Amino acid sequence: MTALEELLAREEIRSLLARRVRCLDEKDWAGFGATYASDAISHSQQAAVGKPLVGGDEIAAITAEMLKDRTTVHQIHPGEITFLSDTRAEGITPLEDMLWWEQDGRKVWLHGYGHYRHVFEKIDGRWLIKEHALSRLKVETGATA
Amino acid sequence: MTALEELLAREEIRSLLARRVRCLDEKDWAGFGATYASDAISHSQQAAVGKPLVGGDEIAAITAEMLKDRTTVHQIHPGEITFLSDTRAEGITPLEDMLWWEQDGRKVWLHGYGHYRHVFEKIDGRWLIKEHALSRLKVETGATA
Amino acid sequence: MTALEELLAREEIRSLLARRVRCLDEKDWAGFGATYASDAISHSQQAAVGKPLVGGDEIAAITAEMLKDRTTVHQIHPGEITFLSDTRAEGITPLEDMLWWEQDGRKVWLHGYGHYRHVFEKIDGRWLIKEHALSRLKVETGATA
Repeated sequence: MTALEELLAREEIRSLLARRVRCLDEKDWAGFGATYASDAISHSQQAAVGKPLVGGDEIAAITAEMLKDRTTVHQIHPGEITFLSDTRAEGITPLEDMLWWEQDGRKVWLHGYGHYRHVFEKIDGRWLIKEHALSRLKVETGATA
Repeated sequence: MTALEELLAREEIRSLLARRVRCLDEKDWAGFGATYASDAISHSQQAAVGKPLVGGDEIAAITAEMLKDRTTVHQIHPGEITFLSDTRAEGITPLEDMLWWEQDGRKVWLHGYGHYRHVFEKIDGRWLIKEHALSRLKVETGATA
Repeated sequence: MTALEELLAREEIRSLLARRVRCLDEKDWAGFGATYASDAISHSQQAAVGKPLVGGDEIAAITAEMLKDRTTVHQIHPGEITFLSDTRAEGITPLEDMLWWEQDGRKVWLHGYGHYRHVFEKIDGRWLIKEHALSRLKVETGATA
Protein backbone atom coordinates (compact mmCIF):
# COMPACT_ATOMS: atom_id res chain seq x y z
CA MET A 1 0.00 0.00 0.00
CA THR A 2 1.05 3.57 -0.58
CA ALA A 3 0.93 5.97 2.36
CA LEU A 4 -2.31 7.42 0.97
CA GLU A 5 -3.91 3.98 0.59
CA GLU A 6 -3.02 3.15 4.17
CA LEU A 7 -4.59 6.39 5.43
CA LEU A 8 -7.80 5.55 3.54
CA ALA A 9 -7.80 2.00 4.94
CA ARG A 10 -7.31 3.40 8.44
CA GLU A 11 -10.35 5.70 8.02
CA GLU A 12 -12.45 2.84 6.67
CA ILE A 13 -11.59 0.62 9.65
CA ARG A 14 -12.32 3.47 12.09
CA SER A 15 -15.75 3.99 10.47
CA LEU A 16 -16.38 0.22 10.61
CA LEU A 17 -15.69 0.19 14.36
CA ALA A 18 -17.93 3.22 14.96
CA ARG A 19 -20.75 1.74 12.88
CA ARG A 20 -20.50 -1.58 14.76
CA VAL A 21 -21.14 -0.04 18.20
CA ARG A 22 -23.83 2.34 16.91
CA CYS A 23 -25.73 -0.57 15.33
CA LEU A 24 -25.21 -2.62 18.52
CA ASP A 25 -26.71 0.07 20.77
CA GLU A 26 -29.51 0.99 18.35
CA LYS A 27 -30.26 -2.74 17.94
CA ASP A 28 -29.79 -2.59 14.16
CA TRP A 29 -28.84 -6.26 13.96
CA ALA A 30 -28.52 -6.42 10.15
CA GLY A 31 -26.12 -3.46 10.25
CA PHE A 32 -24.24 -5.00 13.20
CA GLY A 33 -23.82 -8.37 11.47
CA ALA A 34 -22.61 -6.69 8.28
CA THR A 35 -19.50 -5.40 10.05
CA TYR A 36 -18.19 -9.00 10.30
CA ALA A 37 -16.84 -11.32 7.60
CA SER A 38 -19.06 -14.30 6.80
CA ASP A 39 -16.44 -16.55 8.42
CA ALA A 40 -15.49 -14.14 11.25
CA ILE A 41 -14.74 -15.64 14.66
CA SER A 42 -15.95 -13.85 17.78
CA HIS A 43 -14.59 -14.85 21.18
CA SER A 44 -16.34 -12.25 23.29
CA GLN A 45 -19.59 -14.14 23.92
CA GLN A 46 -17.65 -17.31 24.86
CA ALA A 47 -18.31 -17.01 28.60
CA ALA A 48 -22.07 -16.89 27.97
CA VAL A 49 -22.34 -19.26 25.00
CA GLY A 50 -19.51 -21.73 25.73
CA LYS A 51 -17.92 -21.56 22.28
CA PRO A 52 -16.72 -19.00 19.73
CA LEU A 53 -19.37 -17.68 17.33
CA VAL A 54 -18.74 -17.92 13.59
CA GLY A 55 -19.91 -15.47 10.92
CA GLY A 56 -21.73 -12.14 11.04
CA ASP A 57 -25.19 -13.74 10.92
CA GLU A 58 -24.61 -16.02 13.93
CA ILE A 59 -22.77 -13.31 15.89
CA ALA A 60 -25.65 -10.88 15.29
CA ALA A 61 -28.39 -13.42 16.08
CA ILE A 62 -26.85 -14.56 19.39
CA THR A 63 -26.00 -10.98 20.41
CA ALA A 64 -29.55 -9.84 19.61
CA GLU A 65 -30.97 -12.63 21.79
CA MET A 66 -28.59 -11.82 24.69
CA LEU A 67 -29.35 -8.08 24.63
CA LYS A 68 -33.02 -8.06 23.62
CA ASP A 69 -34.30 -6.70 26.96
CA ARG A 70 -31.27 -4.60 27.80
CA THR A 71 -30.43 -0.96 27.18
CA THR A 72 -26.75 -0.79 26.19
CA VAL A 73 -24.10 1.85 25.55
CA HIS A 74 -20.82 0.67 24.00
CA GLN A 75 -18.25 3.44 23.74
CA ILE A 76 -15.00 3.05 21.82
CA HIS A 77 -12.02 5.35 22.19
CA PRO A 78 -9.18 6.18 19.79
CA GLY A 79 -6.98 3.11 19.46
CA GLU A 80 -4.17 1.51 17.50
CA ILE A 81 -4.27 -0.11 14.04
CA THR A 82 -1.31 -2.01 12.56
CA PHE A 83 -1.29 -3.19 8.94
CA LEU A 84 0.11 -6.70 8.41
CA SER A 85 -0.44 -6.66 4.63
CA ASP A 86 -2.56 -4.88 2.02
CA THR A 87 -5.59 -6.89 3.14
CA ARG A 88 -4.95 -7.71 6.80
CA ALA A 89 -4.64 -5.51 9.91
CA GLU A 90 -4.69 -5.79 13.69
CA GLY A 91 -6.36 -3.31 16.03
CA ILE A 92 -6.58 -2.59 19.74
CA THR A 93 -9.58 -0.41 20.62
CA PRO A 94 -10.46 0.77 24.15
CA LEU A 95 -14.05 -0.05 25.17
CA GLU A 96 -16.37 1.10 27.94
CA ASP A 97 -19.71 -0.68 28.04
CA MET A 98 -22.79 -0.15 30.17
CA LEU A 99 -25.79 -2.47 30.28
CA TRP A 100 -29.06 -1.93 32.17
CA TRP A 101 -31.88 -4.44 32.55
CA GLU A 102 -34.50 -5.80 34.96
CA GLN A 103 -34.18 -9.08 36.81
CA ASP A 104 -36.59 -10.41 39.44
CA GLY A 105 -38.18 -6.97 39.65
CA ARG A 106 -34.89 -5.18 40.31
CA LYS A 107 -32.91 -2.81 38.11
CA VAL A 108 -29.54 -4.40 37.40
CA TRP A 109 -26.51 -2.88 35.69
CA LEU A 110 -23.08 -3.89 34.39
CA HIS A 111 -20.32 -1.37 33.74
CA GLY A 112 -17.15 -2.66 32.09
CA TYR A 113 -13.82 -1.40 30.79
CA GLY A 114 -11.35 -3.12 28.48
CA HIS A 115 -9.91 -3.45 24.99
CA TYR A 116 -11.30 -4.98 21.85
CA ARG A 117 -8.58 -6.91 20.02
CA HIS A 118 -9.47 -7.34 16.36
CA VAL A 119 -8.12 -8.79 13.17
CA PHE A 120 -9.51 -7.02 10.10
CA GLU A 121 -9.52 -8.31 6.52
CA LYS A 122 -10.24 -6.60 3.23
CA ILE A 123 -12.69 -8.87 1.41
CA ASP A 124 -14.14 -7.97 -2.00
CA GLY A 125 -12.81 -4.43 -1.60
CA ARG A 126 -14.22 -3.77 1.90
CA TRP A 127 -12.57 -3.97 5.33
CA LEU A 128 -14.45 -6.26 7.75
CA ILE A 129 -13.92 -7.75 11.19
CA LYS A 130 -12.33 -11.20 10.86
CA GLU A 131 -11.56 -11.96 14.53
CA HIS A 132 -13.06 -10.32 17.60
CA ALA A 133 -11.94 -10.66 21.22
CA LEU A 134 -12.24 -8.57 24.38
CA SER A 135 -9.81 -8.22 27.29
CA ARG A 136 -11.03 -6.61 30.50
CA LEU A 137 -9.46 -4.02 32.83
CA LYS A 138 -12.44 -3.98 35.21
CA VAL A 139 -16.10 -4.98 35.43
CA GLU A 140 -18.54 -3.67 38.03
CA THR A 141 -22.10 -4.87 38.55
CA GLY A 142 -24.87 -3.73 40.83
CA ALA A 143 -28.59 -3.47 41.42
CA THR A 144 -31.03 -0.87 42.63
CA ALA A 145 -34.38 -1.60 44.26
CA MET B 1 -12.79 15.88 -4.06
CA THR B 2 -9.69 13.77 -4.45
CA ALA B 3 -9.01 11.09 -1.84
CA LEU B 4 -6.43 13.37 -0.23
CA GLU B 5 -8.85 16.32 -0.09
CA GLU B 6 -11.47 14.12 1.57
CA LEU B 7 -8.95 12.96 4.21
CA LEU B 8 -8.11 16.61 4.98
CA ALA B 9 -11.81 17.52 5.19
CA ARG B 10 -12.38 14.58 7.55
CA GLU B 11 -9.59 15.80 9.85
CA GLU B 12 -10.95 19.34 9.80
CA ILE B 13 -14.45 18.17 10.77
CA ARG B 14 -13.02 15.98 13.55
CA SER B 15 -11.10 18.96 14.94
CA LEU B 16 -14.24 21.11 14.69
CA LEU B 17 -16.20 18.58 16.75
CA ALA B 18 -13.43 18.34 19.37
CA ARG B 19 -13.13 22.13 19.61
CA ARG B 20 -16.90 22.51 20.01
CA VAL B 21 -17.10 20.31 23.14
CA ARG B 22 -13.89 21.73 24.62
CA CYS B 23 -15.23 25.30 24.26
CA LEU B 24 -18.60 24.15 25.65
CA ASP B 25 -17.07 22.64 28.80
CA GLU B 26 -14.55 25.46 29.30
CA LYS B 27 -17.40 27.99 28.76
CA ASP B 28 -15.54 29.69 25.88
CA TRP B 29 -18.79 30.89 24.28
CA ALA B 30 -17.17 32.84 21.42
CA GLY B 31 -15.20 29.75 20.45
CA PHE B 32 -18.30 27.56 20.82
CA GLY B 33 -20.46 29.83 18.63
CA ALA B 34 -17.75 29.96 15.97
CA THR B 35 -18.14 26.22 15.28
CA TYR B 36 -21.61 26.90 13.78
CA ALA B 37 -22.58 28.57 10.50
CA SER B 38 -24.29 31.96 10.86
CA ASP B 39 -27.53 30.32 9.68
CA ALA B 40 -27.01 26.97 11.44
CA ILE B 41 -30.07 25.28 12.94
CA SER B 42 -29.79 23.54 16.30
CA HIS B 43 -32.55 21.22 17.48
CA SER B 44 -30.96 20.01 20.68
CA GLN B 45 -32.21 22.80 22.98
CA GLN B 46 -35.75 22.44 21.60
CA ALA B 47 -37.15 20.69 24.69
CA ALA B 48 -35.95 23.56 26.90
CA VAL B 49 -36.51 26.51 24.55
CA GLY B 50 -39.57 25.36 22.57
CA LYS B 51 -38.11 26.07 19.13
CA PRO B 52 -34.95 25.43 17.08
CA LEU B 53 -32.13 27.94 17.58
CA VAL B 54 -30.67 29.69 14.52
CA GLY B 55 -27.07 30.82 14.04
CA GLY B 56 -23.90 30.41 16.08
CA ASP B 57 -24.49 33.60 18.07
CA GLU B 58 -27.98 32.63 19.25
CA ILE B 59 -26.99 29.00 19.88
CA ALA B 60 -24.03 30.16 21.99
CA ALA B 61 -26.02 32.80 23.91
CA ILE B 62 -28.87 30.45 24.86
CA THR B 63 -26.49 27.60 25.72
CA ALA B 64 -24.39 29.96 27.88
CA GLU B 65 -27.53 31.04 29.78
CA MET B 66 -28.70 27.42 30.29
CA LEU B 67 -25.33 26.20 31.55
CA LYS B 68 -24.05 29.26 33.44
CA ASP B 69 -24.22 27.65 36.90
CA ARG B 70 -23.46 24.10 35.81
CA THR B 71 -20.23 22.14 35.56
CA THR B 72 -20.39 20.09 32.35
CA VAL B 73 -18.38 17.37 30.62
CA HIS B 74 -19.34 16.54 27.02
CA GLN B 75 -17.37 13.61 25.63
CA ILE B 76 -17.47 12.62 21.97
CA HIS B 77 -16.30 9.28 20.64
CA PRO B 78 -15.02 8.27 17.19
CA GLY B 79 -17.97 8.41 14.79
CA GLU B 80 -18.97 8.31 11.15
CA ILE B 81 -18.68 11.07 8.51
CA THR B 82 -20.20 10.75 5.02
CA PHE B 83 -19.51 13.31 2.28
CA LEU B 84 -22.53 14.31 0.19
CA SER B 85 -20.59 16.77 -2.00
CA ASP B 86 -17.37 18.81 -1.92
CA THR B 87 -19.01 21.22 0.54
CA ARG B 88 -21.59 19.15 2.43
CA ALA B 89 -21.26 16.17 4.80
CA GLU B 90 -23.28 14.25 7.36
CA GLY B 91 -21.93 12.93 10.64
CA ILE B 92 -23.05 10.68 13.49
CA THR B 93 -20.98 11.21 16.65
CA PRO B 94 -21.47 9.32 19.92
CA LEU B 95 -21.91 11.59 22.95
CA GLU B 96 -21.76 11.11 26.71
CA ASP B 97 -22.63 14.20 28.73
CA MET B 98 -22.56 14.87 32.45
CA LEU B 99 -23.95 17.97 34.13
CA TRP B 100 -23.73 18.90 37.81
CA TRP B 101 -25.47 21.83 39.50
CA GLU B 102 -27.21 22.95 42.69
CA GLN B 103 -30.97 23.25 43.04
CA ASP B 104 -32.86 24.09 46.25
CA GLY B 105 -29.70 23.43 48.22
CA ARG B 106 -29.18 19.96 46.76
CA LYS B 107 -26.51 18.70 44.38
CA VAL B 108 -28.22 17.54 41.20
CA TRP B 109 -26.74 15.67 38.25
CA LEU B 110 -27.70 14.52 34.76
CA HIS B 111 -25.81 11.78 32.92
CA GLY B 112 -26.78 11.15 29.30
CA TYR B 113 -25.79 8.98 26.34
CA GLY B 114 -26.68 9.39 22.68
CA HIS B 115 -25.59 10.48 19.23
CA TYR B 116 -25.10 13.89 17.71
CA ARG B 117 -26.47 13.95 14.16
CA HIS B 118 -24.88 16.77 12.19
CA VAL B 119 -24.87 18.32 8.75
CA PHE B 120 -21.62 20.12 8.00
CA GLU B 121 -21.02 22.72 5.29
CA LYS B 122 -17.85 24.21 3.90
CA ILE B 123 -18.41 27.98 3.90
CA ASP B 124 -15.70 30.44 2.77
CA GLY B 125 -13.15 27.62 2.88
CA ARG B 126 -13.94 26.33 6.37
CA TRP B 127 -16.10 23.40 7.53
CA LEU B 128 -18.81 24.44 10.00
CA ILE B 129 -21.86 22.89 11.67
CA LYS B 130 -24.96 23.62 9.59
CA GLU B 131 -27.52 21.43 11.41
CA HIS B 132 -27.27 19.98 14.91
CA ALA B 133 -29.53 17.38 16.53
CA LEU B 134 -29.18 14.84 19.34
CA SER B 135 -30.79 11.40 19.71
CA ARG B 136 -30.68 9.70 23.11
CA LEU B 137 -29.91 6.12 24.15
CA LYS B 138 -30.39 6.83 27.87
CA VAL B 139 -30.58 9.70 30.36
CA GLU B 140 -30.19 9.31 34.11
CA THR B 141 -30.70 12.03 36.69
CA GLY B 142 -30.26 12.13 40.44
CA ALA B 143 -29.54 14.22 43.50
CA THR B 144 -27.38 13.99 46.57
CA ALA B 145 -28.06 15.74 49.87
CA MET C 1 5.38 19.32 5.47
CA THR C 2 3.11 18.39 2.59
CA ALA C 3 -0.57 17.77 3.33
CA LEU C 4 0.09 14.02 3.12
CA GLU C 5 3.05 14.21 5.50
CA GLU C 6 0.92 16.12 8.01
CA LEU C 7 -1.85 13.50 7.82
CA LEU C 8 0.72 10.77 8.51
CA ALA C 9 2.16 12.76 11.44
CA ARG C 10 -1.35 13.24 12.83
CA GLU C 11 -1.98 9.47 12.70
CA GLU C 12 1.36 8.75 14.36
CA ILE C 13 0.61 11.16 17.23
CA ARG C 14 -2.88 9.69 17.66
CA SER C 15 -1.40 6.19 17.90
CA LEU C 16 1.21 7.46 20.39
CA LEU C 17 -1.53 8.86 22.64
CA ALA C 18 -3.56 5.65 22.43
CA ARG C 19 -0.50 3.50 23.17
CA ARG C 20 0.41 5.69 26.17
CA VAL C 21 -2.91 5.12 27.99
CA ARG C 22 -3.08 1.44 27.05
CA CYS C 23 0.41 0.86 28.49
CA LEU C 24 -0.53 2.94 31.56
CA ASP C 25 -3.64 0.87 32.33
CA GLU C 26 -2.00 -2.47 31.49
CA LYS C 27 1.01 -1.44 33.64
CA ASP C 28 3.45 -1.92 30.74
CA TRP C 29 5.92 0.60 32.18
CA ALA C 30 8.61 0.16 29.51
CA GLY C 31 6.03 0.82 26.81
CA PHE C 32 4.63 3.77 28.77
CA GLY C 33 8.05 5.39 29.27
CA ALA C 34 8.89 4.93 25.58
CA THR C 35 6.11 7.36 24.59
CA TYR C 36 8.12 10.24 26.14
CA ALA C 37 11.31 11.93 24.92
CA SER C 38 14.37 11.27 27.09
CA ASP C 39 14.23 14.93 28.20
CA ALA C 40 10.42 15.20 28.34
CA ILE C 41 8.90 17.26 31.14
CA SER C 42 5.75 16.05 32.87
CA HIS C 43 3.78 18.39 35.10
CA SER C 44 0.88 16.11 35.93
CA GLN C 45 2.41 14.36 38.96
CA GLN C 46 3.53 17.72 40.43
CA ALA C 47 0.83 17.81 43.15
CA ALA C 48 1.97 14.39 44.42
CA VAL C 49 5.73 14.66 43.83
CA GLY C 50 6.33 18.40 44.35
CA LYS C 51 8.29 18.95 41.15
CA PRO C 52 8.07 18.22 37.41
CA LEU C 53 9.39 14.84 36.30
CA VAL C 54 12.05 14.70 33.58
CA GLY C 55 12.47 11.97 30.94
CA GLY C 56 10.50 8.87 30.05
CA ASP C 57 12.41 6.66 32.49
CA GLU C 58 11.73 8.86 35.53
CA ILE C 59 8.12 9.55 34.51
CA ALA C 60 7.48 5.81 34.13
CA ALA C 61 9.24 4.85 37.37
CA ILE C 62 7.38 7.40 39.53
CA THR C 63 4.04 6.65 37.85
CA ALA C 64 4.56 2.90 38.36
CA GLU C 65 5.24 3.47 42.06
CA MET C 66 2.18 5.72 42.47
CA LEU C 67 -0.19 3.30 40.72
CA LYS C 68 1.25 -0.06 41.77
CA ASP C 69 -1.74 -1.08 43.91
CA ARG C 70 -4.40 0.69 41.88
CA THR C 71 -6.62 -0.45 39.05
CA THR C 72 -6.81 2.39 36.52
CA VAL C 73 -8.72 3.26 33.36
CA HIS C 74 -7.51 6.30 31.40
CA GLN C 75 -9.78 7.12 28.45
CA ILE C 76 -8.85 9.68 25.83
CA HIS C 77 -11.30 11.20 23.38
CA PRO C 78 -10.79 12.72 19.93
CA GLY C 79 -8.91 16.01 20.37
CA GLU C 80 -7.04 18.75 18.56
CA ILE C 81 -3.49 18.68 17.15
CA THR C 82 -1.78 21.81 15.75
CA PHE C 83 1.57 21.63 13.94
CA LEU C 84 4.04 24.38 14.84
CA SER C 85 6.78 23.09 12.51
CA ASP C 86 7.82 19.88 10.74
CA THR C 87 9.05 18.49 14.07
CA ARG C 88 6.91 20.19 16.72
CA ALA C 89 3.18 20.08 17.47
CA GLU C 90 0.73 20.96 20.24
CA GLY C 91 -2.24 18.85 21.27
CA ILE C 92 -5.29 19.11 23.52
CA THR C 93 -6.77 15.70 24.33
CA PRO C 94 -9.86 15.13 26.52
CA LEU C 95 -9.26 12.66 29.38
CA GLU C 96 -11.49 10.72 31.73
CA ASP C 97 -9.65 8.74 34.39
CA MET C 98 -10.85 6.30 37.01
CA LEU C 99 -8.72 4.86 39.80
CA TRP C 100 -9.73 2.22 42.33
CA TRP C 101 -7.69 1.09 45.33
CA GLU C 102 -7.90 -0.01 48.98
CA GLN C 103 -7.02 2.22 51.91
CA ASP C 104 -7.46 1.33 55.60
CA GLY C 105 -9.64 -1.60 54.59
CA ARG C 106 -11.99 0.51 52.48
CA LYS C 107 -12.49 0.62 48.73
CA VAL C 108 -11.59 4.08 47.51
CA TRP C 109 -12.09 5.60 44.05
CA LEU C 110 -11.19 8.72 42.10
CA HIS C 111 -13.05 9.75 38.95
CA GLY C 112 -11.67 12.72 37.02
CA TYR C 113 -12.31 14.70 33.85
CA GLY C 114 -10.04 17.15 32.05
CA HIS C 115 -7.68 17.78 29.16
CA TYR C 116 -4.14 16.66 28.52
CA ARG C 117 -2.11 19.52 27.05
CA HIS C 118 0.92 18.18 25.20
CA VAL C 119 3.87 19.34 23.18
CA PHE C 120 5.09 16.67 20.77
CA GLU C 121 8.49 16.53 19.05
CA LYS C 122 9.75 14.41 16.20
CA ILE C 123 13.08 13.00 17.37
CA ASP C 124 15.16 10.61 15.24
CA GLY C 125 12.18 10.16 12.93
CA ARG C 126 9.56 9.36 15.60
CA TRP C 127 6.96 11.61 17.28
CA LEU C 128 7.25 11.60 21.08
CA ILE C 129 5.75 13.48 24.02
CA LYS C 130 8.02 16.41 24.93
CA GLU C 131 5.81 18.20 27.50
CA HIS C 132 2.86 16.80 29.41
CA ALA C 133 0.32 18.69 31.53
CA LEU C 134 -3.26 18.11 32.68
CA SER C 135 -6.04 20.63 33.32
CA ARG C 136 -9.14 19.50 35.20
CA LEU C 137 -12.86 20.09 34.62
CA LYS C 138 -13.92 18.03 37.65
CA VAL C 139 -12.63 15.43 40.09
CA GLU C 140 -14.82 13.28 42.30
CA THR C 141 -13.63 10.90 45.01
CA GLY C 142 -15.45 8.48 47.26
CA ALA C 143 -15.26 5.31 49.30
CA THR C 144 -17.36 2.24 49.81
CA ALA C 145 -17.33 0.06 52.93
